[in-house]
Amino acid sequence: MQRTLKPPPPRGATLSDVAAAAGVSTMTASRVMNGRGGASEETKARVLAAATTLSYRPNSFARGLKGDRSFTVGIVVPDIGNPFFPEIIKGAELAARARGFTLLTCNVVEDPEREAEVLATLLDRRVDGVIVCSARLEDKRLQEAIEPHRAAVLINRPMSRRIAGTIEIDFRTGLAAATRLLIDRGRRRFAYIGGLATSHSGRMRRAGIIDALTEHGLELALEEATTPNLEGGVDAARRLLERGTGIDTVICYNDLVAIGAMSVIHERGFVIPRDIAVLGCDDILPARLVNPPLSTMHVAKQDLGDAAMRMLIDRIEGRNLQQSITIEPELIERGTT
Amino acid sequence: MQRTLKPPPPRGATLSDVAAAAGVSTMTASRVMNGRGGASEETKARVLAAATTLSYRPNSFARGLKGDRSFTVGIVVPDIGNPFFPEIIKGAELAARARGFTLLTCNVVEDPEREAEVLATLLDRRVDGVIVCSARLEDKRLQEAIEPHRAAVLINRPMSRRIAGTIEIDFRTGLAAATRLLIDRGRRRFAYIGGLATSHSGRMRRAGIIDALTEHGLELALEEATTPNLEGGVDAARRLLERGTGIDTVICYNDLVAIGAMSVIHERGFVIPRDIAVLGCDDILPARLVNPPLSTMHVAKQDLGDAAMRMLIDRIEGRNLQQSITIEPELIERGTT
Repeated sequence: MQRTLKPPPPRGATLSDVAAAAGVSTMTASRVMNGRGGASEETKARVLAAATTLSYRPNSFARGLKGDRSFTVGIVVPDIGNPFFPEIIKGAELAARARGFTLLTCNVVEDPEREAEVLATLLDRRVDGVIVCSARLEDKRLQEAIEPHRAAVLINRPMSRRIAGTIEIDFRTGLAAATRLLIDRGRRRFAYIGGLATSHSGRMRRAGIIDALTEHGLELALEEATTPNLEGGVDAARRLLERGTGIDTVICYNDLVAIGAMSVIHERGFVIPRDIAVLGCDDILPARLVNPPLSTMHVAKQDLGDAAMRMLIDRIEGRNLQQSITIEPELIERGTT
Repeated sequence: MQRTLKPPPPRGATLSDVAAAAGVSTMTASRVMNGRGGASEETKARVLAAATTLSYRPNSFARGLKGDRSFTVGIVVPDIGNPFFPEIIKGAELAARARGFTLLTCNVVEDPEREAEVLATLLDRRVDGVIVCSARLEDKRLQEAIEPHRAAVLINRPMSRRIAGTIEIDFRTGLAAATRLLIDRGRRRFAYIGGLATSHSGRMRRAGIIDALTEHGLELALEEATTPNLEGGVDAARRLLERGTGIDTVICYNDLVAIGAMSVIHERGFVIPRDIAVLGCDDILPARLVNPPLSTMHVAKQDLGDAAMRMLIDRIEGRNLQQSITIEPELIERGTT
C-alpha cells in the first residue's frame, strides 16, 4: 500500500502543533483544550480553530475534557440554618445532577477562617469548581482561596471575571425602591438592622436605603448590626427599642432578623404595621407563616442556584468566561408594611 | 558495641509479630491498627494489647492513624429544604471542626438512586467516613453503598453494628405516648399523613400511633402517604378531607406536612384544635411561627448531629465499634392539640 505523505498525520496532530499554529505557548494551548480558565476569548477561539484545522481531537482532546475531571463541584454557604441557602443549594444540586455532576456543600457558620479552610479542603478533594455564597473573607484572601480552583462562581460578591463568574442580587436598587414606597406612604423614621460588617451584600442593602432617604432629605434614624439569624434579630431589636423613640419603620438584613425583631416589637406592645412597619429580605418560608405575614424582598432562590451552577459548569468547560448576572429582588407586600 | 539479642527488636515489631502474638491474621491486625471496622471488641483488645506488649507503634502505627486520612467526612440528607436537616448538619459540622475534620454535605432530594450515587462519589473523594440521615435505599443496596466506607453512622435507620453505628429517634414510643394523651382528652377519630413508603422512620411513627389506638380498641380512621414537605402536606390533607368525615385528629409525618395540612384545614373552615387537632414531628423553626403554633414531637437536632459526628469519628479512629444511641423525642404542646 502507498503511504500518505500529507497531513493530518496518521495519529493526529500533537498539542505542540496546535500551539504553533495558533501562535501561543503549549501551556496556553493545553489550558484551553483542558477547559481551564486564564486565556482570553480571542486566544481561546484561535486555539480551538487551530485544533479543528489540524484535526487535533481524538484521544488527547477527550482525555483533556474528561480524564482529569472529578465531576464533583462544591458550594460554600455561610449558614445552612438560614432557609435562604438550602433553597439555593437545591437549585444548584438539580442543575449539577442534570449535567452529571455531584454537589458537595460546606457550611462555614459565618466564619471567614472556616471559609478559607473549606475552600482548601474542596481543592484537596479535587472538585472541578466551587460556588461561594455571600463570602465573608476579605478581598485578597478570598481571591487567594478561589484562584487555585479550576472554576468559581460567587453569589453576592464582586470579583474579577477572570477569577470567578458572579451573580449579584441587586438589593441596593431593590431596597431603594421599597424605601421610596414606604416614604411615599408617610413613613419617616427608619431604622436598619444590618448583618455582619464582613457582608458585602449587607453594605449594598444599607446603601439602597440611604439612597432613597437622601433623595427625600431624610436620614437613617437608628442602626444596629447583628448576626444574621433569629437570635440576632431579637438582640438587635431590643437594643434598638432601648435606644430609640419614635421610629416607624425597621428594615432588616434578612427575614430571620426581621422575624426575631417582630417578636420583640410585639412584646413591647407596638402594633405592626400601625406603629412600626417591618421589612425583611430573602422571602424564606417562615416569612409567610408569621403573624402578620412578613413583607420582604423576594429572591428566586432555586433559580439563583440553578443559574450559578450552569455558569460554573460553563466555566469548567471553558465557555462564557466573561459571564456575570444581576438578579433584581422584588418587593412582596404582606402584612407588615 | 554488643548487640541486643532480646525483643523488642531495635526497629520495633512488625505487624506480623503483632498478628501472631494476638492469634489473628495479619489482615485483621492491620484493620485494627488502621482503625478500620470489622473486628470484634474482643479481637481489637487482643490486637492492641499485643501491639503494646511488643512496642509496635512508632511509624506504622502513626501512619496507619494519620497518613491515609483525608480528615474529611460526608453527610447525606434526603431534603436540605426541610429545616430539620440543616440543624443536624450544623451540630455535625461543629463537632467535626472541633476534631479537625471538614464536613461535606450531599442532598439527595428524596431519591434512593441519588443516595447510592453520592455515597459512591464521597468514597471516590476519599472521605474518612459518612453519616446518612433517613436513608431511602432498601437494606441490601444501602449496605452495599456503606460497606466500602471506612466508617459510617446511620440516623433513623437500623443496620448491623459491624457496618454502621446507628442513632435512632424513637418516634414509635414518642408518638404512642402522644396518641395516648390525645385519646385521654377525648379524641377518637385519628388520621395519619405518612411520608414515603421508603422511610423506615415513617413506618415507626405509624406503628406508635397504632400501638396506642389498639390499646384503646380504636383504629386509624384514615391514612394518606405523601412527599414529606409543605406541598405534600397540602395535597394529602385535601385528599383526606375529601375522603373522610368526622376525623378529629391529624398526626403528620413531620412539621412541614403538618403546616401544609393546617392551611387546608383552615381553608375548609375547620377550627384548629377545636374541630381537628394537628400534631407534627421534628419541631423545626416554622412550627413556632404558624397560627396557632404547632404542637409537635421535639427532637434536639443539633445534639443529634453532634452525637452522630462524635460516633463517626470514634469509629474512624477504631473506638466504640458497638455504639448505638436511641434518642427520645418529647411532646411539645402548643396551640394545635
